[in-house]
Amino acid sequence: MSSQREFDEFSITEEVINTFRNCGNPRLQQVMTVLVQKLHEAVREVELTQAEWEFAIGFLTRTGQICDERRQEFILLSDTLGISMLVDAINNRAPAESTQSTVQGPFHVQATPPAELGANIDTLPGGGEPMWVDVNILDLEGRPIVGAEVDVWHSDENGFYDVQYGADAELTRRARFVTGGDGRVYFWSSLPAKYPIPDDGPVGQMLEAVGRHPFRPAHLHFWVRVAGYKPLVTHIFVRESDYLDSDAVFGVKDSLIDDFPRHAPGTAPDGRVMETPYRTLNWDFRLPRLDQLPKAA
Amino acid sequence: MSSQREFDEFSITEEVINTFRNCGNPRLQQVMTVLVQKLHEAVREVELTQAEWEFAIGFLTRTGQICDERRQEFILLSDTLGISMLVDAINNRAPAESTQSTVQGPFHVQATPPAELGANIDTLPGGGEPMWVDVNILDLEGRPIVGAEVDVWHSDENGFYDVQYGADAELTRRARFVTGGDGRVYFWSSLPAKYPIPDDGPVGQMLEAVGRHPFRPAHLHFWVRVAGYKPLVTHIFVRESDYLDSDAVFGVKDSLIDDFPRHAPGTAPDGRVMETPYRTLNWDFRLPRLDQLPKAA
Repeated sequence: MSSQREFDEFSITEEVINTFRNCGNPRLQQVMTVLVQKLHEAVREVELTQAEWEFAIGFLTRTGQICDERRQEFILLSDTLGISMLVDAINNRAPAESTQSTVQGPFHVQATPPAELGANIDTLPGGGEPMWVDVNILDLEGRPIVGAEVDVWHSDENGFYDVQYGADAELTRRARFVTGGDGRVYFWSSLPAKYPIPDDGPVGQMLEAVGRHPFRPAHLHFWVRVAGYKPLVTHIFVRESDYLDSDAVFGVKDSLIDDFPRHAPGTAPDGRVMETPYRTLNWDFRLPRLDQLPKAA
Repeated sequence: MSSQREFDEFSITEEVINTFRNCGNPRLQQVMTVLVQKLHEAVREVELTQAEWEFAIGFLTRTGQICDERRQEFILLSDTLGISMLVDAINNRAPAESTQSTVQGPFHVQATPPAELGANIDTLPGGGEPMWVDVNILDLEGRPIVGAEVDVWHSDENGFYDVQYGADAELTRRARFVTGGDGRVYFWSSLPAKYPIPDDGPVGQMLEAVGRHPFRPAHLHFWVRVAGYKPLVTHIFVRESDYLDSDAVFGVKDSLIDDFPRHAPGTAPDGRVMETPYRTLNWDFRLPRLDQLPKAA
């Protein structure tokens, strides 16, 4: 005779966790155990009704089914519930002098085109204000890092990325630079704008139901990679933008905001003569060496 | 000037919860608040890595994308993590004398065919042993309930339900009865068998990865509905079946197991002369009136 199971709304959690005892992967066993514990706690705490459970099943199903090669609704869900930024924070602990990280977002592309320092990377300029960017890639002692790969990408003045204009759209407002002996990266582009995350799916319905907007404040993305240093994925935000205090994906940090000052027409820092006003961004990115990181627990 | 956001891996949770403050639906606000709290606690407790987060996004996406009109993988996920049975327990609190509930499962159909008391509902008999079922629908005082609608459904001797044989398969081993003045439901069918839940998708991969099998012990489903009483969704399990102590969906309760005794060829309880051995199930289902239920908190 086998012994049977018998449990109630409290003891069932231990029953489920006990079924992971033969898991050959201790890390998976740990993650599943904590996940079951916390999900059961949530169900008990709110006394989830049968109808609410059915709605949740339907919501998750619709979230999966709207995903395709160009859309990842579960990442949006993770972003809008602050989980992506929490994972980012846990995985990017670094000395206080380091530039802070933030979410990568869905618009980076593997095929980012290389560019020459000083180039204009906005090859399809619209109505956005010209923007001169001049940043330094530095170590924590303030010394330039040579040979760092720096990917840059951002929206146009309407808040759209190149890839949102269709599968055949030209890649623009994105580039990959490599630092020389001075650790500098400098280029022309145009000022990005605030934009809504895609809000015509389940995540948009969730945001509306809880009384939230889908917008992100204007920002430039940077991804810095160089051997021997902790990679850095971050944004620099535009201080005058709306939604700095309510970014739909919780990506804003005070230390990542710049004025992007506007300048009257005249001679720009690189000697180019500007006939219209233009913006500038100067920034120092500081990366810890791998041996400067806190030890894992 | 708007104030910006600034938070770390601990304070981000309060930031996210605070965005629900304008939710017009207090219940939704409560559910979302607890969900975010518990999911963030889980991520912090295991220190989820970026690679694990990416795996989780992919797992949820695949789980949604394998769903169609005949398959609901998120229900399987909920079932195999004990969440369905937890929701069932919370929503079916009843006096101790009541018959216990268990999960409905995915194989009930709206178009369950009506049947006459005494009929054989296995219209496509295979190799399964004949089974005589004779049950009473009673109130908590032991009095017969008249006019109760009783849906019955179960697998064949190979563990498959009719609907698993294709979209055009004939509905069988399922029926809807209505109790008369004696509260009885009685019919012939054939003994069901253990079976695996569908395990060729993400949930099957999860079960394998954590070292679990996908099987459910043999059982009959009952769904009893009658005005003025709490509806009852439950199974009766076959005591000799494997997996009573390890049902993949945690549906077994000690009080829902019967011997299904085997009888030698001869005259069956309804007078039919059996030339082969046969099984019997006798059972009393006890339903509380709505006014006998515990009050909601």
